[in-house]
Amino acid sequence: MKICIIGASGHYWSTLKAVQADPDASVIGVAPGAPGEEMENLVNHPHLGRTTLYDCYTAMLEKEKPDIVVVNSHFYLNGKIAANTVRRGIHTYTEKPMATTLDDLNDLRKAAQENPKVLLLAMQELRYGPAVIAAKQAIDSGVVGEIVQATAQKSYKIGNRPAFYRKQETYGGIIPWIGTHAIDWIHWYTGKRFISGYASQTRIGNRDHGEMESAATAVLALEGSIPATINLDFCRPVEAPTHGDDRIRIIGSKGVVEVKDNTATLITDTAGPVDLEIGPERNVFREIMDTVREKKSGLLLSTGESFYVSEVCLKLRTSAETGAIVDLR
Amino acid sequence: MKICIIGASGHYWSTLKAVQADPDASVIGVAPGAPGEEMENLVNHPHLGRTTLYDCYTAMLEKEKPDIVVVNSHFYLNGKIAANTVRRGIHTYTEKPMATTLDDLNDLRKAAQENPKVLLLAMQELRYGPAVIAAKQAIDSGVVGEIVQATAQKSYKIGNRPAFYRKQETYGGIIPWIGTHAIDWIHWYTGKRFISGYASQTRIGNRDHGEMESAATAVLALEGSIPATINLDFCRPVEAPTHGDDRIRIIGSKGVVEVKDNTATLITDTAGPVDLEIGPERNVFREIMDTVREKKSGLLLSTGESFYVSEVCLKLRTSAETGAIVDLR
Repeated sequence: MKICIIGASGHYWSTLKAVQADPDASVIGVAPGAPGEEMENLVNHPHLGRTTLYDCYTAMLEKEKPDIVVVNSHFYLNGKIAANTVRRGIHTYTEKPMATTLDDLNDLRKAAQENPKVLLLAMQELRYGPAVIAAKQAIDSGVVGEIVQATAQKSYKIGNRPAFYRKQETYGGIIPWIGTHAIDWIHWYTGKRFISGYASQTRIGNRDHGEMESAATAVLALEGSIPATINLDFCRPVEAPTHGDDRIRIIGSKGVVEVKDNTATLITDTAGPVDLEIGPERNVFREIMDTVREKKSGLLLSTGESFYVSEVCLKLRTSAETGAIVDLR
Repeated sequence: MKICIIGASGHYWSTLKAVQADPDASVIGVAPGAPGEEMENLVNHPHLGRTTLYDCYTAMLEKEKPDIVVVNSHFYLNGKIAANTVRRGIHTYTEKPMATTLDDLNDLRKAAQENPKVLLLAMQELRYGPAVIAAKQAIDSGVVGEIVQATAQKSYKIGNRPAFYRKQETYGGIIPWIGTHAIDWIHWYTGKRFISGYASQTRIGNRDHGEMESAATAVLALEGSIPATINLDFCRPVEAPTHGDDRIRIIGSKGVVEVKDNTATLITDTAGPVDLEIGPERNVFREIMDTVREKKSGLLLSTGESFYVSEVCLKLRTSAETGAIVDLR
């Protein structure tokens, strides 16, 4: 199985790990997706194996004819690149958000509709955290009852981000970039669609990152008027013990499940706090390769949800920019 | 110092504790504020001491002429009762929200303006948690830098609440009842006013509590476009180790402070997580009595903030009911 990677500005790690572990797969080519894109981290990555570095990704695709392409360039280009690769009939695993504008997202959707045999997925791979999966299984088992409220947090250290993060046009905003995960968890856990949303964001304390927002919050009403919130920030202090501080809390009519520090904890009416049993690590790209091979894969992502979550995030960003409620129906 | 208590449906405990510890104070009379109000828990409370139970609170006030009256009846009546006691010139410590309708709140404000020498405060006494105070001191010291985002949670077991909780008209709603604390913490910690808000709420899983909401969430934009959220619920499972699960998280440009489980934790750019030193317990009513005695009290509450927080909550409730953003300027 031949894999190509376009760009090195996102989450190519699960791909490298899965390919390295698979004797029948290799990353045969890599190429930048954006002018001047920094490729060093990928090219020098110890898990990469032997590959060819191309200057131009279209030349690479024509030469290598990959089975799957991984797209993770500067965020504003990912939608356009993915539309290109899908139209070439190549299975595409692309960075989230799938696009940073609704126009690009709609064009990508059109490309996908025109090529229904192409597998197209966004990197909502934070579904694959073992504690995240354990919580999902608990919710699906009915142990928390009917869902009443959902909250999710994404918090990161900002560090020193590349220049393209510092311009809204090339970055896309905090809600599409990290809010996608929070929105995706809530959608996936509840199985419900969003009705309306209202978001607020700021650049205070962004540590000289230009237009990049430091924090955002949003309220979402889900089908059945279930209230949800997300809170996002890039203010995790330098000395915090980990890079990120993801949290999810799902309240049900009979119990509450929370994910934090790679642990899923359940409290119910019949038992006090208990840490849920965590399954083995699963690799999303391994399951994507199996899906392409038409093997049973158990893949947790879907094309429809990939589009849906990106669309909700782009609309929520509009809410934060305009101060108006967005209709998400 | 003569204290009377009207009603027994709210937070009279700090009063009993402070009076019991003060040889110069006594609760000389108690009376229901609402027709048929259950007074047993108060009358039989081991901290109450010798008192007189009246049928009618106005008769009690005329007879006993208290220095301070504590109002905590069925919530829909507290605003009207407090307006009555303030107009009698009696210092009044009243349940939050100060009223369950804007009309009642405005009438109470008028009463307070007409009686500027009367001390009127709402029971925003969750400011007095030792960990809450420790976090406030850390924020005020500047150690977290400029505030970037604020989130607060109130979560309780629902148990089996009295009938007046089960009707919106007599209860007032989840946002005024427990949201006041979350809103108050955010306002107090940030020192900023709210610009706009959007809330969502539900009754799913309210365990046969009629019209009582089980959960709510809200986004608030503070002055300077600082984003905030609150999440409220009465879904804490029966087997949870504590009745409530309060949480506050304040993100700054140089650090993050969190309050949870009566602990305040600080992370900054120069030091990993550290539990803040917690001061001794302080009793709000002790400080109210000292204020009335014109002693130095250090009281953490103010009349203006009491009104402000109640007003924000009533407006946010309207947002949850109508699905529209509320202007909070």
